[in-house]
Amino acid sequence: MKKAIFYHAGCPVCISAEHEIISLIGVERVHIGEERTRISEAEDAGVASVPALLTPNGQVLHLNFGASMEAVKG
Amino acid sequence: MKKAIFYHAGCPVCISAEHEIISLIGVERVHIGEERTRISEAEDAGVASVPALLTPNGQVLHLNFGASMEAVKG
Repeated sequence: MKKAIFYHAGCPVCISAEHEIISLIGVERVHIGEERTRISEAEDAGVASVPALLTPNGQVLHLNFGASMEAVKG
Repeated sequence: MKKAIFYHAGCPVCISAEHEIISLIGVERVHIGEERTRISEAEDAGVASVPALLTPNGQVLHLNFGASMEAVKG
């Protein structure tokens, strides 16, 4: 199968477009450093660190380790 | 349908994970400001500005306007 190619140059418009592509596939992006009211929701779902992907089945996939929730909460 | 949620905090590991998610859905990411040998390939495909999505059918979708190819070439 030929694949799609996303050409970008790291510019703000490029980054925004990439986020929209993520949204198109049904994944909501939540920056919990900025949307702090959603920290408790993430913790209740089992998120212990970021980045993490909460699947539609309620499972949490911790993808590598960027920062602990403690660090995010500051 | 319940959707997936990607929790992140803008950290480098978070950004890298997001790029991997993009790859998972079969989209190749090309930063033509860094991979300059691919500029001509993009131009041949019809990319006039970034960000742009080249579909598997060879169609170019220019997503908003971040920078012209002239600006990328510098």
